[in-house]
Amino acid sequence: MKTIDLNCDMGESFGTYVLGYDALAMPYVTSINVACGFHASDPDNMAKTVMLAKEKGIAVGAHPGFPDLVGFGRRAMALTPEEVKNAVVYQIGALAAFCRTEGIKMQHVKAHGALYNMAEKDLAIATAIAAAIKAVDPELYMLCLANSQMVVAAKQQGVRFVEEAFADRAYTEEGTLVSRKVAGSVIHDITEVVTRVVRMAKDESVISITGKEIPIHAQTICVHGDTPGAVDMVKALREALDKENIVLRAFGS
Amino acid sequence: MKTIDLNCDMGESFGTYVLGYDALAMPYVTSINVACGFHASDPDNMAKTVMLAKEKGIAVGAHPGFPDLVGFGRRAMALTPEEVKNAVVYQIGALAAFCRTEGIKMQHVKAHGALYNMAEKDLAIATAIAAAIKAVDPELYMLCLANSQMVVAAKQQGVRFVEEAFADRAYTEEGTLVSRKVAGSVIHDITEVVTRVVRMAKDESVISITGKEIPIHAQTICVHGDTPGAVDMVKALREALDKENIVLRAFGS
Amino acid sequence: MKTIDLNCDMGESFGTYVLGYDALAMPYVTSINVACGFHASDPDNMAKTVMLAKEKGIAVGAHPGFPDLVGFGRRAMALTPEEVKNAVVYQIGALAAFCRTEGIKMQHVKAHGALYNMAEKDLAIATAIAAAIKAVDPELYMLCLANSQMVVAAKQQGVRFVEEAFADRAYTEEGTLVSRKVAGSVIHDITEVVTRVVRMAKDESVISITGKEIPIHAQTICVHGDTPGAVDMVKALREALDKENIVLRAFGS
Amino acid sequence: MKTIDLNCDMGESFGTYVLGYDALAMPYVTSINVACGFHASDPDNMAKTVMLAKEKGIAVGAHPGFPDLVGFGRRAMALTPEEVKNAVVYQIGALAAFCRTEGIKMQHVKAHGALYNMAEKDLAIATAIAAAIKAVDPELYMLCLANSQMVVAAKQQGVRFVEEAFADRAYTEEGTLVSRKVAGSVIHDITEVVTRVVRMAKDESVISITGKEIPIHAQTICVHGDTPGAVDMVKALREALDKENIVLRAFGS
Repeated sequence: MKTIDLNCDMGESFGTYVLGYDALAMPYVTSINVACGFHASDPDNMAKTVMLAKEKGIAVGAHPGFPDLVGFGRRAMALTPEEVKNAVVYQIGALAAFCRTEGIKMQHVKAHGALYNMAEKDLAIATAIAAAIKAVDPELYMLCLANSQMVVAAKQQGVRFVEEAFADRAYTEEGTLVSRKVAGSVIHDITEVVTRVVRMAKDESVISITGKEIPIHAQTICVHGDTPGAVDMVKALREALDKENIVLRAFGS
Repeated sequence: MKTIDLNCDMGESFGTYVLGYDALAMPYVTSINVACGFHASDPDNMAKTVMLAKEKGIAVGAHPGFPDLVGFGRRAMALTPEEVKNAVVYQIGALAAFCRTEGIKMQHVKAHGALYNMAEKDLAIATAIAAAIKAVDPELYMLCLANSQMVVAAKQQGVRFVEEAFADRAYTEEGTLVSRKVAGSVIHDITEVVTRVVRMAKDESVISITGKEIPIHAQTICVHGDTPGAVDMVKALREALDKENIVLRAFGS
Repeated sequence: MKTIDLNCDMGESFGTYVLGYDALAMPYVTSINVACGFHASDPDNMAKTVMLAKEKGIAVGAHPGFPDLVGFGRRAMALTPEEVKNAVVYQIGALAAFCRTEGIKMQHVKAHGALYNMAEKDLAIATAIAAAIKAVDPELYMLCLANSQMVVAAKQQGVRFVEEAFADRAYTEEGTLVSRKVAGSVIHDITEVVTRVVRMAKDESVISITGKEIPIHAQTICVHGDTPGAVDMVKALREALDKENIVLRAFGS
Repeated sequence: MKTIDLNCDMGESFGTYVLGYDALAMPYVTSINVACGFHASDPDNMAKTVMLAKEKGIAVGAHPGFPDLVGFGRRAMALTPEEVKNAVVYQIGALAAFCRTEGIKMQHVKAHGALYNMAEKDLAIATAIAAAIKAVDPELYMLCLANSQMVVAAKQQGVRFVEEAFADRAYTEEGTLVSRKVAGSVIHDITEVVTRVVRMAKDESVISITGKEIPIHAQTICVHGDTPGAVDMVKALREALDKENIVLRAFGS
């Protein structure tokens, strides 16, 4: 029996500002990454998001980012590894409190935005994230980009981890993400995305941007829930995976 | 054997900005209230403060406040009880993560500044704080102003609590604090402060601003550590209490 | 010839977060109140909003609020009058710089949210706002709620002002706003709103919540642009006023 | 007659947090760079600082930085040139309002911290700063590091500028700053600093870290005011320059 997890960023609203289609997309995914107040969200939206996840039986993870609300955590910031570690400890703790309030166990930690992008290539930053997870709760999974420095860091620190692939991103022959600056790096066609995800889950492979089939091991696949089209996509993904008898299940369950 | 706890606000530095004499004052107190990033502090200062407390064997509590760094949490803000609850859950969680990182157990939660002042008189706000504590960790103590709505809320919510008195504040005949706007409401003379604290700890009483001896039950006494003079005061307090064979000990120990 | 101004809050988006239908609503109003980064907006959204207003020939005003992004400036905060004055000076200055960048003159200042509500009744707060305007640029108009302490403050400080009425709010017999907590305080029916605004502009009167016709002098009427329905409303208002030969024109032009 | 300007960062306090010795150092300098609320300061501290500068007759400039209070604007942030331009426009405007309140004219703009360091080498960032200055007020001077991309940008944009040298920093033979990571890059000895500054002002030269005399043209010299020792240094500098009959005068006066 094949199983796969679909993870999705949620809880990114901030105060009066609403972002994403959390309630609509949640039924189709198995794990969510909840913003923790640094790049998005606030205590009230975190409470609401965790409550909703509990209701729907979705696994919850922390989604720590840089302290940059205006930039939504998407702008690189030159934090030291020590500062990254403390920022991640803080954000995990904040979300963990809402999980305890709802009586659920936090499943994982996934870095957000520019922090994720830095951790992909910079071992010191990836290690800071892994060290934060280990220090706060060694039962948490670190959600790592497959084939990245995050995986190296998680292994070195002895932190549990899962590898993720992206549903709608093109891959190089080496199994890394094609830069967003390259034409064709993001795939918008639902049918194509569905086909790719099914192949990732079933065959553990992906067709690279150059047309070659390459292996990819991912226990979780990142999908988006922040546009109406995204909701259609997660719905279609779910149906296609069901049809192929691939069981959708949170990786930590 | 009489015992008493001395609690002190700490970890109030923010980024480059240094506030207070944490390392100097810590040896003389038994519990500290650590700012959690809303009205003061940040992940790096929280990490440093909790590490220092562990080294010195001082009990740690969260000191949640309003989200108002510029105003240091001292300006009343019209948050709803629900917003207060979530803000407190968030801040407790953030500090709890640093406690876990150091392998220590958080002892208590004490509201800061304008939030404390509101909770003193407004049962809905006090209840929101108590409910947050209960939801996150029912083993935490709520640090309450003696004879205030905080005590009522803690009892109603079934939350463990201790009552505090203030070392350097004048009291009314009813056992409530004299408003800071009244002349003589803050006592600056070290000898007088020491005498009052010894009486609070030994006789469970205080001389009111009108000169009458009134009963006061407090398991912890709030002292300050944010001026060089404050360090002398906590040192003098400690010595006087030792002399009277009153044992200084964190209330949760 | 009767003239009237329609003013509308705009530029309330923040970073990635989009709020309101600025580009759709702008053609139907004559003055806009632009958020200045304290309760909403940021330098990039301010630049964009002022550029759009210049293109459309709409008059621009500053919309200073409390420093509370999470609460969107809608939560009362206990700032001193001196703090209010400095916060307003700061925000006027920030927006003025974008007006200079576009080569336009700022027309007015209107307090936002909880600051507006406080200034309505608290003369010290209203005076702080008037004093800020006078200190920065005595040619700016202060946008005041008709019959409020803002008018008193503007007169005392010798600051130019205009009075505003609300298109969709019920009025008491005394000509003050009915509290939002009262049923019927906000009018949602477009036809009714249009009828009321035409009466305000043409007859300088309004029917109170008790059914009595009362006088109201307003050079500007506040409308909303933050929902798709609101865009329909400003469009309908504009058409109705045109039909009655009431000239829509920014009050400062 | 030789003249020189001494510029110093001031107004860096934030809320309750006090930083620097503004009142003590101000009498010895001729221009100050005032933080604008992004990396430090707030409306109240800005008001206070500009008022003090007016009293003492010191020229005022804006000191815009990255939106990073916790990091004091010292951490590089990947803002686009457009974002930098808008952030600088905003901050100039905010400070300009306090200058108007005091009836003084702002003299200059100097980028702060990581923004300064980026503008030193990155022409797009330096150009964004110059474009912001030009757009808001073409009479403002841009304060540029001598021999840096800031000078190139100011010339290209047609913005008035002055070049600055650092009193306590070592120079390479090419006239650029020795990186702070290199031993000996910061000079702490007051006598040596004084000698260097006198040489800069009198002979327009400096002895490089390699011992060679190299030319340096600077109309202003940057000094520090954030430690008690710094106050002694500016005092000593002032006395030494007086003795050499070098007239201390704000560059824009």
